[in-house]
Amino acid sequence: MANAIIITIGDELLIGQVIDTNSSFIAQELNKIGISVLQRIAVGDNKQDIWDALNAAHKKSDVIILTGGLGPTADDITKPLLNEYFGGTMVINAAVLEHIEAIFKRFNRPMLAVNIKQAEVPDVCTVLFNERGTAPGMLFTKENTICISLPGVPHEMKGLMQDKVVPYLKENVLASSIIHETIVTAGEGESFVAERLKDFEASLPQHIKLAYLPNYGMLRLRLTVKGSKENEIALQQEIQWFKNKLAAQLNNIIIADKDTTLSNIIAALLIEYNLTMTTAESCTGGYIAHQITANAGSSTYFNGSVIAYQNSIKENVLKVPANVLETEGAVSEPTVIQMAKEVLAITRSKVSIAVSGIMGPGGGTHEKPVGTVWIAVANNSKVETQLLQLRFDRIKNIEITCMSAMLLLRKFIIAQYS
Amino acid sequence: MANAIIITIGDELLIGQVIDTNSSFIAQELNKIGISVLQRIAVGDNKQDIWDALNAAHKKSDVIILTGGLGPTADDITKPLLNEYFGGTMVINAAVLEHIEAIFKRFNRPMLAVNIKQAEVPDVCTVLFNERGTAPGMLFTKENTICISLPGVPHEMKGLMQDKVVPYLKENVLASSIIHETIVTAGEGESFVAERLKDFEASLPQHIKLAYLPNYGMLRLRLTVKGSKENEIALQQEIQWFKNKLAAQLNNIIIADKDTTLSNIIAALLIEYNLTMTTAESCTGGYIAHQITANAGSSTYFNGSVIAYQNSIKENVLKVPANVLETEGAVSEPTVIQMAKEVLAITRSKVSIAVSGIMGPGGGTHEKPVGTVWIAVANNSKVETQLLQLRFDRIKNIEITCMSAMLLLRKFIIAQYS
Repeated sequence: MANAIIITIGDELLIGQVIDTNSSFIAQELNKIGISVLQRIAVGDNKQDIWDALNAAHKKSDVIILTGGLGPTADDITKPLLNEYFGGTMVINAAVLEHIEAIFKRFNRPMLAVNIKQAEVPDVCTVLFNERGTAPGMLFTKENTICISLPGVPHEMKGLMQDKVVPYLKENVLASSIIHETIVTAGEGESFVAERLKDFEASLPQHIKLAYLPNYGMLRLRLTVKGSKENEIALQQEIQWFKNKLAAQLNNIIIADKDTTLSNIIAALLIEYNLTMTTAESCTGGYIAHQITANAGSSTYFNGSVIAYQNSIKENVLKVPANVLETEGAVSEPTVIQMAKEVLAITRSKVSIAVSGIMGPGGGTHEKPVGTVWIAVANNSKVETQLLQLRFDRIKNIEITCMSAMLLLRKFIIAQYS
Repeated sequence: MANAIIITIGDELLIGQVIDTNSSFIAQELNKIGISVLQRIAVGDNKQDIWDALNAAHKKSDVIILTGGLGPTADDITKPLLNEYFGGTMVINAAVLEHIEAIFKRFNRPMLAVNIKQAEVPDVCTVLFNERGTAPGMLFTKENTICISLPGVPHEMKGLMQDKVVPYLKENVLASSIIHETIVTAGEGESFVAERLKDFEASLPQHIKLAYLPNYGMLRLRLTVKGSKENEIALQQEIQWFKNKLAAQLNNIIIADKDTTLSNIIAALLIEYNLTMTTAESCTGGYIAHQITANAGSSTYFNGSVIAYQNSIKENVLKVPANVLETEGAVSEPTVIQMAKEVLAITRSKVSIAVSGIMGPGGGTHEKPVGTVWIAVANNSKVETQLLQLRFDRIKNIEITCMSAMLLLRKFIIAQYS
């Protein structure tokens, strides 16, 4: 079974200035082709640290993927280091130079010496042509280990992974099969689900693992089987058998039979029942609409939204009566009911979500502390509401409100239309 | 100078199913108190791998922070491993047990055997009480290394870091000073800025580093100085001197003199000039409004938005004339101008952003390919527009549109009001 170590380079990763999304992406891509990731390591822009990590990885893994440290500026030291590690000489690569020249020409910008330097590569590497930027990827081999260096800009790294690295590794690394199957549940806590699954877990063979991945109100259960490529079909059947058993046991709380997002689940339901949706958002400030429209093709079922942050918009646009806002308040059941109904009319949609709450850190009162949220979901004949009392920070409160609202809409659609 | 290694545990990190935000947060907190992070390592739920990573970190660092592997379910193996590594015996901690019982009582849920087990800790550790969940943190010391194990749930980990770990490390680890100073620029590429800063970089003393952190249209420049705690005031003065020199040199492209987000920059300008804002969003689907309202206190300057995904909402709510939509199209300059103007009136705001574009992957035409975006910013007397031609994937296109729109609004506010 081939394995890999991912090394990400950059001081910004060690001081927490940026979140490392690159290594998750790389890990996903490697897993898909049956290369299991042993470790992910982040090191600073320091020659010795990079060298040590590379050297340690070289001893342990079949594939090493490095990202970062390839930009045009002076804090980048990876390329000369790789040249030294793999015993090469730096040379200008004509194809890369031509590509960089073309990019600068397209943007009508003068080329600088540092840009020409980006076309320099060790003569012992295979150049992985970077169509999305100026820094090329590089592939080295040494003592049966494949070492691939990619730029750290996520968009460029992704292009190279998909177009060059994955096809190369598929051809050149004898990979085993890793198959994951995930089901998603909602409404029951991790320990209660675990209690229900005690016997199931005990029945799992050694080579199949079950992992619990909780995420506020939702719980993903992931089965993983590893084995040889020749047995792939048998492994697939085996894991499917256990997945069906798992699904049958958790029948009442399953919301998806594959790893997916809640917005994708909503999208599938809207398409299935030929519905259009809308949102009237106060405290989430557009986050629910953003989650829905992050899906490609959302224009077939999403019409639009009213974000009513100020009471004046709740009153003037969403027609919440002034006396309701005064007596019941902006964060109240009658307010979200009216918001949910009116936004249906304004956007001519079939179903709606409305939310109003206090996300914090300020704005709480004794009767309505920070974390108080009212949610309504509606169609032309029915409204359902839910009250939340959250205890998190602002960003988390926004995320959980969004997730809870989508879970409520999901239930509503199933109850009303299926 | 004290240093640290962060070890995150969980198969989900190695298959890329979740993005690791925990270690960025931990790195930030450690940096603030002058502990520099040597490495971040992610390993799977595998005893040997965790043991090896712990052992290697033990040899290299003064502080080890582990997260993950402490939940109630069966895939968790960290606690017994730590018990073995540090030579302890598992015992029930009365205070933790009482706390868990109280949590279950509050939610009116029956306690299970696995929950009681969460109160078990090695007798050689100091328990770090977890007010936000059931899994306690644990602190071990061995041969001058401090090893702290925290639950992987971000909200719980953060609480423990801030309330227990940071105060403890401040008291017990002799930390040096690390000072970062960041300026943010926009409108000029990394290599051009680097060219302008050649002499400046050459003038930097050995103990001061300059890093380039590009992010589509924006570039953060970070100066870092390291030294002893006693010299802190002198170091602060020194880095400030270089920061001023840097700022003077990049005067025409600076948008912030500290590490901040574009939405915070906008917020500060709105407050400074006593303005309220609104958005009329088609292709960004609420993402701009979400970015603005993610800031605490945004209700003082953000009124609300209209998300006009379908043309019917552009026409009926935002009053874009049907013939404009027909002849010029929804993605056109006259459309966004009308959207920007009308949303000012609907929400009674002082300044507005309007966007309409094709985010992909579908929806492009020969004249208007995927990535075509029109942006308008307006107040009651003036409108400015910008055309973008983006070449990224859907999510990236949404993010860059949002960032470009906020940059345009920033310029507009400064030009109109300062």
